[in-house]
Amino acid sequence: MPELARDVNLTVNRGITKMKPSAIRAFDMEVSAIPGILKLTLGEPDFNTPEHVKAAAVAAIKNNDSHYSTTRGKLALRQAISKWIKRERGIDYSADDEIVVTIGATEALTATVLAMFNPGDKVIVPTPVFSLYFPIVELAGATPVLVDTSNDGFVLTADRLEEEINRAGDGVKAVMLNYPTNPTGRNYSEQQLRELATVIKKHHLMAIADEIYHTLTYDGVQPASLTTMIPERTVLIDGLSKSHAMTGYRLGFIAGPAAFIEQASKVHGFLVTTASDASQAAAIEAYNNGDADPIKYREAYQRRRDYLREELSKIGFEFAVPNGAFYMFVKIPQQYGKDDWQFGLDLAHQAKVGIIPGSAFGPGGEGYFRISYAASDEDLHEFIRRLTAFMNNLN
Amino acid sequence: MPELARDVNLTVNRGITKMKPSAIRAFDMEVSAIPGILKLTLGEPDFNTPEHVKAAAVAAIKNNDSHYSTTRGKLALRQAISKWIKRERGIDYSADDEIVVTIGATEALTATVLAMFNPGDKVIVPTPVFSLYFPIVELAGATPVLVDTSNDGFVLTADRLEEEINRAGDGVKAVMLNYPTNPTGRNYSEQQLRELATVIKKHHLMAIADEIYHTLTYDGVQPASLTTMIPERTVLIDGLSKSHAMTGYRLGFIAGPAAFIEQASKVHGFLVTTASDASQAAAIEAYNNGDADPIKYREAYQRRRDYLREELSKIGFEFAVPNGAFYMFVKIPQQYGKDDWQFGLDLAHQAKVGIIPGSAFGPGGEGYFRISYAASDEDLHEFIRRLTAFMNNLN
Repeated sequence: MPELARDVNLTVNRGITKMKPSAIRAFDMEVSAIPGILKLTLGEPDFNTPEHVKAAAVAAIKNNDSHYSTTRGKLALRQAISKWIKRERGIDYSADDEIVVTIGATEALTATVLAMFNPGDKVIVPTPVFSLYFPIVELAGATPVLVDTSNDGFVLTADRLEEEINRAGDGVKAVMLNYPTNPTGRNYSEQQLRELATVIKKHHLMAIADEIYHTLTYDGVQPASLTTMIPERTVLIDGLSKSHAMTGYRLGFIAGPAAFIEQASKVHGFLVTTASDASQAAAIEAYNNGDADPIKYREAYQRRRDYLREELSKIGFEFAVPNGAFYMFVKIPQQYGKDDWQFGLDLAHQAKVGIIPGSAFGPGGEGYFRISYAASDEDLHEFIRRLTAFMNNLN
Repeated sequence: MPELARDVNLTVNRGITKMKPSAIRAFDMEVSAIPGILKLTLGEPDFNTPEHVKAAAVAAIKNNDSHYSTTRGKLALRQAISKWIKRERGIDYSADDEIVVTIGATEALTATVLAMFNPGDKVIVPTPVFSLYFPIVELAGATPVLVDTSNDGFVLTADRLEEEINRAGDGVKAVMLNYPTNPTGRNYSEQQLRELATVIKKHHLMAIADEIYHTLTYDGVQPASLTTMIPERTVLIDGLSKSHAMTGYRLGFIAGPAAFIEQASKVHGFLVTTASDASQAAAIEAYNNGDADPIKYREAYQRRRDYLREELSKIGFEFAVPNGAFYMFVKIPQQYGKDDWQFGLDLAHQAKVGIIPGSAFGPGGEGYFRISYAASDEDLHEFIRRLTAFMNNLN
């Protein structure tokens, strides 16, 4: 009801008025209004949260666990996370001062970026990548140096990193890496990460390692992590949204050297005070007793990936085979040139299928579309049927 | 385990290294280590969350309500908030575009500040006030203009506001007001707010109205709100932490003109994506069916205030009588001069009582201490016994 007074000098900090809200969410909202739409738009597991984890959250609520926890999160949760990282990656992070619990990986990333960068700092961001990275770097007043990886199979090579650091000149402070990568589903091998680590070290940089899809790597490959290579210059971002199908619980964490965590914890406190108790209780259970949960998800996703890979190839689509996460990044039909947005809209309106146009993910994404196969087998079959019909119509 | 690499140019954005973490939480942590300490430190209801609200959260978890909600929060929750504001304050906010659900009032404040200010903007902040205000204004790159209200009974007068705006010169963009006020428990009357509103309007400013203690006003006084006076230039901050004893659920909201909410929603999305589903389900129940809950809390707090008022007067303490929230702001014994920190430490170590030194709340707070009487009657009785013994010892 209240209209903003016309005389106020609205606003808004650092070009926020010019920032788009998440292009992913914006496109998703646009196509969601189409009756009968089948959406493969959001990066969200279709599974329900494991029962034992739900039970822990319910018990916390019933037991009146509803008072402020410490800023960094309950100690029992930080201990559970510490042990889990050790089991998963073989490296020790102290529950006391090297871990802070956040509102999902989103707040983990934003608190990290706000704590790390001064206005004017530069940060290397290989693209295409999760579109949140762009506005949060801007929010911190830093400058993203976007590196289009589409000619290297959507992987940042060490040579390319070296070249881009040199080209960017002074002020490069960090590299932000997401692996396995949203939106391409490409992962980095141990060897690739080791080569990047060498360059990062050589140039005295920090690495922001967004490993939110860490538990989802396929073909029996053990996921590698920068935390084991350059722990003294790595800030690890992770959380339960993808590994335990807990997006709606909003539970993530930052782990890193104590001197950095001290700063990130302050920012976290200023942003949100602390995480919700019920979500923290659920997370204690998930990290202590939930190692089996991601395995069954991984198996299901790999099966779906194999299905899509085969079917999309049959239709004639081109893509880099994903080896992690639950996305495929596919070239749009040549009739559309590079106009992935138009392709997305046509597909939504004519075939009643929702995907995300690749250009939402930055340079190198134009001319592609992202499919999230965190969807039921039935939905994926129906997706292929509708896509096939659309393509038959087009050709 | 991983020590930060020595060669990295740590850090850190806009003086965050120099920022203290919440002085309230820091002092609380320091005294919490003392065996047998009785703490009246944190602004947190001692009550448990109402059973009907807990039941709604439990049902949501059991029903697998665990997927991302929209950025602004579930529509049903925004509708419930809209109706509740209407019942409480008599003003309409549209669930569609004038409300965004946040991670407590903390994120509501931080997202508002980040969305509103450009670096260099000035914001009037009457003090003493909740210490979060200082770092979040800095985080936005804005400059707080602190106005010590201790000589005006801890209330910002219209004359003083006018004077401070003129003195601050160009660039003043907003006034941040918390009423009833943490840490003093002082509230603003309808007349006082009307006079402030006139000045705010005259100078083309915005008002950030932090009404988190809105339901806790005493002596039968109806709480007034800037939203009813200058809605076109007011951003309302509120949430369930105090009204429904739900601090650990982390659930708040921002309401304001759509043009501002659009920007604040973007920032909110970048900070946390969205609020947790279980907390949102609890909030729908609290706002739709929980109007009776704050009334019983208010009655209990008023009884405790009356008790403390009488007992502290008997001991000889001076204070401005609180008419809202659940704090008393009391002059330290004259033996301590203005050294409220030392008084707080002595009281903690010698009397085993934890309070918060007044200087944590900014100019005008030095020489005072804050008591939170969101504590059981038994604890308050014991507090008075220990304080009496301490004072007898001192005198």
